[in-house]
Amino acid sequence: MPVNLTDPDPASLLPVKGVELGHAEARIKKPGRKDLLVMRLAPGSRVAGVFTQNRFCAAPVQVCRQHLASGQGIRALVVNTGNANAGTGEDGLMRARRTCEALAGLLGIADQQVLPFSTGVIMEPLPVERIIAGLPACLANLREDNWANAAQAIMTTDIVAKACSKRIHLEGQSITITGIAKGSGMIHPNMATMLGFIATDAAVSQPALESMIRYAVNRSFNCITVDGDTSTNDSLILIATGQAGNAELSEHGAGYAALRDAVTEVATTLAQAIVRDGEGATKFMTVRVEGGRDEAECRKVAYAVAHSPLVKTAFFASDPNLGRILAAVGYAGIEDLDVSLLKLYLDDVLVAENGGRAASYREEDGQRVMKRPEITVRVVLGRGHATATVWTCDFSYDYVRINADYRT
Amino acid sequence: MPVNLTDPDPASLLPVKGVELGHAEARIKKPGRKDLLVMRLAPGSRVAGVFTQNRFCAAPVQVCRQHLASGQGIRALVVNTGNANAGTGEDGLMRARRTCEALAGLLGIADQQVLPFSTGVIMEPLPVERIIAGLPACLANLREDNWANAAQAIMTTDIVAKACSKRIHLEGQSITITGIAKGSGMIHPNMATMLGFIATDAAVSQPALESMIRYAVNRSFNCITVDGDTSTNDSLILIATGQAGNAELSEHGAGYAALRDAVTEVATTLAQAIVRDGEGATKFMTVRVEGGRDEAECRKVAYAVAHSPLVKTAFFASDPNLGRILAAVGYAGIEDLDVSLLKLYLDDVLVAENGGRAASYREEDGQRVMKRPEITVRVVLGRGHATATVWTCDFSYDYVRINADYRT
Repeated sequence: MPVNLTDPDPASLLPVKGVELGHAEARIKKPGRKDLLVMRLAPGSRVAGVFTQNRFCAAPVQVCRQHLASGQGIRALVVNTGNANAGTGEDGLMRARRTCEALAGLLGIADQQVLPFSTGVIMEPLPVERIIAGLPACLANLREDNWANAAQAIMTTDIVAKACSKRIHLEGQSITITGIAKGSGMIHPNMATMLGFIATDAAVSQPALESMIRYAVNRSFNCITVDGDTSTNDSLILIATGQAGNAELSEHGAGYAALRDAVTEVATTLAQAIVRDGEGATKFMTVRVEGGRDEAECRKVAYAVAHSPLVKTAFFASDPNLGRILAAVGYAGIEDLDVSLLKLYLDDVLVAENGGRAASYREEDGQRVMKRPEITVRVVLGRGHATATVWTCDFSYDYVRINADYRT
Repeated sequence: MPVNLTDPDPASLLPVKGVELGHAEARIKKPGRKDLLVMRLAPGSRVAGVFTQNRFCAAPVQVCRQHLASGQGIRALVVNTGNANAGTGEDGLMRARRTCEALAGLLGIADQQVLPFSTGVIMEPLPVERIIAGLPACLANLREDNWANAAQAIMTTDIVAKACSKRIHLEGQSITITGIAKGSGMIHPNMATMLGFIATDAAVSQPALESMIRYAVNRSFNCITVDGDTSTNDSLILIATGQAGNAELSEHGAGYAALRDAVTEVATTLAQAIVRDGEGATKFMTVRVEGGRDEAECRKVAYAVAHSPLVKTAFFASDPNLGRILAAVGYAGIEDLDVSLLKLYLDDVLVAENGGRAASYREEDGQRVMKRPEITVRVVLGRGHATATVWTCDFSYDYVRINADYRT
């Protein structure tokens, strides 16, 4: 069950002027579920994207990169679930392009103005005919207040839909930010993929938008891990329609930081929702590393702890088997780590210092914290002033069940 | 259940002249099990060791390094299970030294001539009085033909004992090599540790012995992974007693390569036994990467595949969900990997080429291979002539059960 996470209230999801969303049941993998989404953007919208670093990146990721680079101005996005169109070679690229071509034809725009996204099984041919057949139904229900259906339409084995909105005021203008995401594993089984789409009606220059998405992703989606796998299809898109009436924001101008922080907040909520809905998750863990020489070494340590199957199974068992955390810190790759300076806390409980168990530590204190559904593991390295935070979940029987049984 | 692995036939374990082994039930963690081992070495024996890279390395590992560096000539080893003496700070070092001191006193040798080893729970004080109380019983049954009991005495949650022998002839002399190991995870739960002890009666110079252990460990224990965690206590020791009567082997002399290869073979059998007895293992997988530019990148790819929980759960399910392997290859960190040149085989079945599924691939062929208890995943990168091999096991419900329930 997702940890402290329920489906968003549709009334809480604010329309973003200039973004219409339409969904359909295209029977891509099976009938009776929303599995196709079209987002239509007002002319003049600016779009920035960040994509998986996986060398086996999926065909739609390759096409997205090309279309974004073409500079023609993105006007539509199309997202299918049920098939990832990854590990599909030249034929996969052709099918992704045919999807764009079909939607462009219906909307009267250029093929390069469409971005395609796919999530689902890897190494199977994309059923492009069913996607094309489903597009008219998507266009028939394009609406600005359709974010809740959109969040559902991109789910694969997610248990709950992931969406949130935020409103800020910039120099008297009301600015809306709404985002949706899917994923319940950095890579979901062969249902690969984390997908995120965040839109604002603010007017933002293209360089400022690019800078903003990198800032936000480094503090949100790049700080989560469920199983350490990296999908072939991961994509995050940031859209600015420019319909709010504000003066265009530049990277160094007034208002940029406020919007950037609000976008980061939406991205963080969505990213944490993916962890809360992590495969088999029963606990939500924040791993915070402090006192490092630089952020990179703090991240190394945080990921070593967050990736360790031994640490994650101990949290599942609510067992304060905390030597496993020390072991993970020890193999994180800091060559000159002085373990006698290190302190380890579970929430407010000091567990280890001076290279061993803290004199004040009592097993029942550890036990009390381990039973909570949300726990912060805090590692203080004692070598400097840098910090890093990673969010993860525990590792349960259900993770194995979900991933062993997925295709059966 | 261990994969194609049973307890060794005691008669197959050959005594090594100059190595006597004695075990005891010292009630370190619980009564009624062998949990203490002493190995006494003939004067003039040479000893080399390789130890964990974990910065949180256990007290006995630190003491081993100091005693090996003291150059006094190692004459005895003492190994306890039930407590790892790791994450125990200064007090842990003191307890490890007291163990050495007690055994040295009984044997009439210097403290620095004893190497201590511990495996078991982390962050608990070593019950040094029970260990010291158990030493006389160990000395009372010191025998050269005691390897089978020794293999049992170092087990923690291993299901089967791990030991093997090999005999070679060097210039008319018969040379014996016998080894024992324990571990069923690179790190076992909080029962941390892989321990390996290999002895030969050959005469080998110290530099040749150091070179031999590095060669052997890089091709055996450094090629296995169960869960990607690295223990605080991992240790491998190579002993050469010099009792066989051969002329001392130097690194570049005749006979060195033959002995090195035989030692490597024993180390490989022991290392693979650890994987076969991996926590919850139902399948033994060989991941072979070929056609890389150098061995380092081949190892990166092999470990990415072997560490992926998604790949490992698919093997547990006997599900040829092979896109997961491609995804792992893709995120292994080779920046300029051309996926269109890559070929993926499961045993003899070509699964993927040209960036996608091979035209000749049939699901039933994949299914047939996936049902086998031993499977080779072969990844051909198509960029060069280097290779690397890693051994691992699948990832089952039982892994989670064992690691979640360990302390309860």
